[in-house]
Amino acid sequence: MDGEKNIPEFYIILVEPKYSGNIGAVARIMMNFDFDNLFLVNPTDIDDECYKRAVHADKLLDNAMIFSSFNLAIKEIDFLVATSSIESKKDKKHLRNSINLEKFSESINEINGKIGLVFGREDYGLFNEEISLCDLMLKIPTSEKYKALNLSHSVGIVLYSLYIKQYTPKTVRSIGFIEKKKFFENLNLLLDKINYPKHKKDITKVMIKRLMGRSYTSKWEYHTLMGLISKTIDKINKK
Amino acid sequence: MDGEKNIPEFYIILVEPKYSGNIGAVARIMMNFDFDNLFLVNPTDIDDECYKRAVHADKLLDNAMIFSSFNLAIKEIDFLVATSSIESKKDKKHLRNSINLEKFSESINEINGKIGLVFGREDYGLFNEEISLCDLMLKIPTSEKYKALNLSHSVGIVLYSLYIKQYTPKTVRSIGFIEKKKFFENLNLLLDKINYPKHKKDITKVMIKRLMGRSYTSKWEYHTLMGLISKTIDKINKK
Repeated sequence: MDGEKNIPEFYIILVEPKYSGNIGAVARIMMNFDFDNLFLVNPTDIDDECYKRAVHADKLLDNAMIFSSFNLAIKEIDFLVATSSIESKKDKKHLRNSINLEKFSESINEINGKIGLVFGREDYGLFNEEISLCDLMLKIPTSEKYKALNLSHSVGIVLYSLYIKQYTPKTVRSIGFIEKKKFFENLNLLLDKINYPKHKKDITKVMIKRLMGRSYTSKWEYHTLMGLISKTIDKINKK
Repeated sequence: MDGEKNIPEFYIILVEPKYSGNIGAVARIMMNFDFDNLFLVNPTDIDDECYKRAVHADKLLDNAMIFSSFNLAIKEIDFLVATSSIESKKDKKHLRNSINLEKFSESINEINGKIGLVFGREDYGLFNEEISLCDLMLKIPTSEKYKALNLSHSVGIVLYSLYIKQYTPKTVRSIGFIEKKKFFENLNLLLDKINYPKHKKDITKVMIKRLMGRSYTSKWEYHTLMGLISKTIDKINKK
């Protein structure tokens, strides 16, 4: 993320990942969502499979920091977030007491500094000692039937969720008052030309207005529809 | 999703996936988010790697339907959604004019019936002919720097987004495959009658398909539009 804006700086911390393909897939999805910092704790070898799965995120992999222990990896991190799709029902309830991903993504901007997002082993997840070092436990909502997400999917979904909270959608130029007025004048003319039943006219115009409103009709679409109606009217006039 | 409740039924359609590991990863993430129906168009072999990556979603893989063409796969689908992380810059390019994933997930409950979520090839995505058959183009927001998501991550993020919106059923009936076919046949006839420029015909039809797709046209609106077009054609014929 851009460190110049006053937004948190994220570190993705994978604890003892054992499939190199997963590490590569994590690197790729990080780059897809503009996250740069990858920390690896006792990872498996970073091999060809890893780079193959990273595709264009090879630089991100090259720059990954490797640590021999979890404690070393988290030394400089201000706020640590453990992730899991599994929530404990009985043992040490508070330890795994979690907040929902959606809520987390909405509120994380309250924090600044270095935020570590910690993802556990493919098989055993995070150990209780590791979770206890974290400030927050994050839960990714999943089906009750099958909660265990693939490691890179866990990372991907968390990063997507964070990414879209800062995302502002592209603004397509939609039509304004004058264009709309002209369009409905033209439509009205067409309805007259085809002797459209008087009692249906208003409701049909409103219906089309709603339809266009719901779809946020763009300028280009407006001009195309205007052209179509004009051509139709011309045809009727000429005949 | 549960077919007993009056909610849309989702079909995940992978077009010519060429890595079996991706198919397995898609099956797993589908099960993580309670989606059951997997359609495969000309897939690579479903091999051991595929089952390995599916982990506990092996049944879902066993039940996947395999089709020899995209047209066969979509035959019974009422509403088709193409997915992409790549979007055309000019809003003139209707074909790839898209709506954002967040907005889509919030509004999809306007529709019922069979909804196909279409994901393209790992390398070439979806071809224009395939996209033009879809009602809606869905964009997954990503970094400008690296837009291409791994196939199973695209699926995972879309399904997560749908999953967390916790669908609530709506009573408006949206139009299905047959109504849409008839509508576009009729529109085509009108375009011919008014000597609409040949080179513009296809793009205008796609534009109108997108516009209707984005607004989730209801049965009632469909019948009104059909009536309007029929009356116009009658008028031109009579003159």
